[in-house]
Amino acid sequence: MNTTATGTKQFITSEQLLGHWQGHRNLTRRVIEMFPEKELFEFSIGGMRPFAKMAVELISMAGPALKGIVETQTDAYSEEAFKPATKEEILKKWDEETDEINRYFNQIPEARFQETFNLFGQYEFPVYQNIMYFVDNEIHHRAQGFVYLRALGIDPPFFWERF
Amino acid sequence: MNTTATGTKQFITSEQLLGHWQGHRNLTRRVIEMFPEKELFEFSIGGMRPFAKMAVELISMAGPALKGIVETQTDAYSEEAFKPATKEEILKKWDEETDEINRYFNQIPEARFQETFNLFGQYEFPVYQNIMYFVDNEIHHRAQGFVYLRALGIDPPFFWERF
Repeated sequence: MNTTATGTKQFITSEQLLGHWQGHRNLTRRVIEMFPEKELFEFSIGGMRPFAKMAVELISMAGPALKGIVETQTDAYSEEAFKPATKEEILKKWDEETDEINRYFNQIPEARFQETFNLFGQYEFPVYQNIMYFVDNEIHHRAQGFVYLRALGIDPPFFWERF
Repeated sequence: MNTTATGTKQFITSEQLLGHWQGHRNLTRRVIEMFPEKELFEFSIGGMRPFAKMAVELISMAGPALKGIVETQTDAYSEEAFKPATKEEILKKWDEETDEINRYFNQIPEARFQETFNLFGQYEFPVYQNIMYFVDNEIHHRAQGFVYLRALGIDPPFFWERF
């Protein structure tokens, strides 16, 4: 048993959380792949964004955020740097970000997960909460992608298959 | 800095994870509330379940699973025990489960999060992975509820507002 600064129990290690997240990212990658090219960029329900836009959000958030945490720099969030026109471009960038996430996540010292950081100069929360947000936000948008696929008559992958 | 059995860094304490989960549960409760009564039980996209059925899944999983973990009993998963006919019944049960979750979660010793348990006699994984699954599964289905609300012309709550 270890005790922490707050005197509570450890739930999960950083290594386990990273594995958990990359499992989710692998599933999201398969959801991107399953969309027909046109529908990836155009299909929408109830005025929501097409799934390509949601994927760009995920890509624009995780790697840049972790880099910001490691380098304690607070540049604003932006989706301007990546404007894909094809599914292939999205998948290629997705895979590059897999490496970026591993690289920067592993540089975060344990104590920093509990420290507050003003992410993107805008979201001032403990680092662990910001990282949980990236994972949760990905699950959230991917689930919307699942509904889009169902509405298109395509069976999405199993939610629990990650690798 | 604490070190664990696996020699890695702590990412999050059990207390923080419980707070994170209950924040998500509070948001899900608001999503249930926002559905019109009829659409909660009937509205569907692409052959998916109505949101009431998804809520019954969430209710049937978390509390019973934590009780099973604490009492090391492996009764099968079942949705038979709760057949709500109204939104009010779902919300009442939801609140009862909030207390159940707090009660059983807090009885899990730190070491058990890393131990394998055959949840519901069927899902043999480390306890921390099973608990992450409950949270992820809730985010996943609630996001589908968000799409249903949008399709019904109703603005869902903000994803980041938890309490």
